[in-house]
Amino acid sequence: MSETLNKSMAKLPLFEAGHVWLAGAGPGDPGLLTLHALAGLSHADAVVHDALVDPRILALANPNARLEFAGKRGGKPSSTQADITHRLIALARAGLRVLRLKGGDPCIFGRGGEEALALADAGIPFRIIPGITSGLAALTAASIPATLRGVNQALVLVTGRSGESEPGLDWAALAKLRQPIVLYMALHSLEQIAAALMAAGMDRHEPVAVIASATLPEQRLLITELGRVVEETRHAACEAPAIIVVGEIVRVRERLLALAAKVPEMVA
Amino acid sequence: MSETLNKSMAKLPLFEAGHVWLAGAGPGDPGLLTLHALAGLSHADAVVHDALVDPRILALANPNARLEFAGKRGGKPSSTQADITHRLIALARAGLRVLRLKGGDPCIFGRGGEEALALADAGIPFRIIPGITSGLAALTAASIPATLRGVNQALVLVTGRSGESEPGLDWAALAKLRQPIVLYMALHSLEQIAAALMAAGMDRHEPVAVIASATLPEQRLLITELGRVVEETRHAACEAPAIIVVGEIVRVRERLLALAAKVPEMVA
Repeated sequence: MSETLNKSMAKLPLFEAGHVWLAGAGPGDPGLLTLHALAGLSHADAVVHDALVDPRILALANPNARLEFAGKRGGKPSSTQADITHRLIALARAGLRVLRLKGGDPCIFGRGGEEALALADAGIPFRIIPGITSGLAALTAASIPATLRGVNQALVLVTGRSGESEPGLDWAALAKLRQPIVLYMALHSLEQIAAALMAAGMDRHEPVAVIASATLPEQRLLITELGRVVEETRHAACEAPAIIVVGEIVRVRERLLALAAKVPEMVA
Repeated sequence: MSETLNKSMAKLPLFEAGHVWLAGAGPGDPGLLTLHALAGLSHADAVVHDALVDPRILALANPNARLEFAGKRGGKPSSTQADITHRLIALARAGLRVLRLKGGDPCIFGRGGEEALALADAGIPFRIIPGITSGLAALTAASIPATLRGVNQALVLVTGRSGESEPGLDWAALAKLRQPIVLYMALHSLEQIAAALMAAGMDRHEPVAVIASATLPEQRLLITELGRVVEETRHAACEAPAIIVVGEIVRVRERLLALAAKVPEMVA
């Protein structure tokens, strides 16, 4: 396998000195890393990562690479977004190959777009490498297919964090759409979000899944309903990172598990 | 690198005889394949793939693996969904390790959920391996960040194909939400979709990007607006597979490219 892999890797773009790769590390499971991200780890001189990148993924970095933490949680001192982009620019100007590695996909509520704009403005060459976004991987890891004919024709990815100066999301229109809602970073704003959806007419019995640490060995899953999710996540002491899914699609899990119960060696 | 990779791969779950892995191959670029999907290709006895899986990805399969086409387009005879699930079940019952490899993510408008339900019902053990979904990778490949603070707080993934017997999507609620819409497989239904969005009050000047063959060397990009997209995709003879993005986020591309023009060796 290494031979075919090396043949494939040989076709990947070169990681040049003074360039920044903004890459997604996926939801956590190292097996969900892409070959491009792996190539970035192998060739980077500096890896600037956030708290959501699993240590087993960082262990794949070139042993000579400098690993730097630059994130906004994880119990370590927080970097501001400006600190992070200044650091990326400084490392690139020093002639290093800089891998900016973020959990999930850098462009799905991950500030990848902001970092790209800042790098371009500073004259630093960069490329963006998508990663598997945590919201979608979390559903699969919880045995909830994200889409199913007859159940949904759309899927809405929503951030639970929005800037104070931003116009808020139209929760009434979202409730009226009646398609599954995948909430990122929403544990802290869940009370307001659930209230807004119910005020817009969403049934308090609408199924909800809360998936914490999706795809990691410590993954936890809570299946509940909209009217009880705030109380139940508190009671279960759910901690970030968590993905919260609201919608009928959550019920497909029961159908799938009922069928899979017939398969003794079921691995899903 | 092979050594650290092998260490990582050693921790991956075993692909057992008689099991099916439903895996996503990502949008096309082999570098966007995941390590789990690569492990599946390396160990499978049979690879049942659709038309959207790139030949360079199939070339990574174990040379002894049987490759079978089972898809719904690509100019070859179409298999029905029932044919495909029967085939997966028959191969697994014959004791093979069966990799069902689909373009993008198997659970994002890819019938992965249906295949999982059918396998479970037949008593076949399976697991689902997410892939990078084409809609999100297409935006990155077109230099459009999928999300940006101050521009959007959500992103709606929508299929352009829906069953005749299904209740249609509430296009008026979708238009009212005013968040970017990422349309999959929508070239054929684009006239109806654009009309429905404009009837619901969406501006005919709303920016639109059409990204065909995203992430592949033959990628094509068309930037237009809602009122002209049907005529322009016809005029440009856009062909499937294509991702269509509707929303203000499309304009961020201009900002990014204007800044990146300052970077002579820009690679994004």
